[in-house]
Amino acid sequence: MLQDLVKVAPQNYKVLFENNRIRLIEYTSKPGDKTPMHSHPAYLVYILSPGKARFTFPDGKTKERETRPGKVVWSEAVTHMEENTGTTDIRALIIELKK
Amino acid sequence: MLQDLVKVAPQNYKVLFENNRIRLIEYTSKPGDKTPMHSHPAYLVYILSPGKARFTFPDGKTKERETRPGKVVWSEAVTHMEENTGTTDIRALIIELKK
Repeated sequence: MLQDLVKVAPQNYKVLFENNRIRLIEYTSKPGDKTPMHSHPAYLVYILSPGKARFTFPDGKTKERETRPGKVVWSEAVTHMEENTGTTDIRALIIELKK
Repeated sequence: MLQDLVKVAPQNYKVLFENNRIRLIEYTSKPGDKTPMHSHPAYLVYILSPGKARFTFPDGKTKERETRPGKVVWSEAVTHMEENTGTTDIRALIIELKK
């Protein structure tokens, strides 16, 4: 069941652009913000403002990430939830590729 | 003849990430910088620092653009040259889609 992040957490994800090939999303979160479990197609992240985040996967495994501005991360399609575990607001661009 | 922007103007275009589906490029320019004629596949631009630019196409036509941070512009494949015609440095992300 694919849960669209824009539907499950519209306060954290804003669609900046969308067509049939790509969707560009601005992600913003405050310390303590948790987004419910959601699914992405393959995507690239570009960090605008740094921070710390924890990702939790459907099997219960977790992954911690510390980010810095300008950092780029590629991900294949994934389902996860995300929590801002740092002390700063995080801002990032999410570039989702369709098909 | 496709001229890759990274080859014609490496001082203005830096590849941040590339795989078989996408190429993420950071574009930076100073007032007066001109990049030679080059070609893009379909791409999305996200403006980080604002400014003014003039695009010149192979047929000699031109287009002026004023940008602001956070502005997003989609373009189908195109060949053009670009000039920073403002008084500020421009910084932007170029998201090229392959195939």
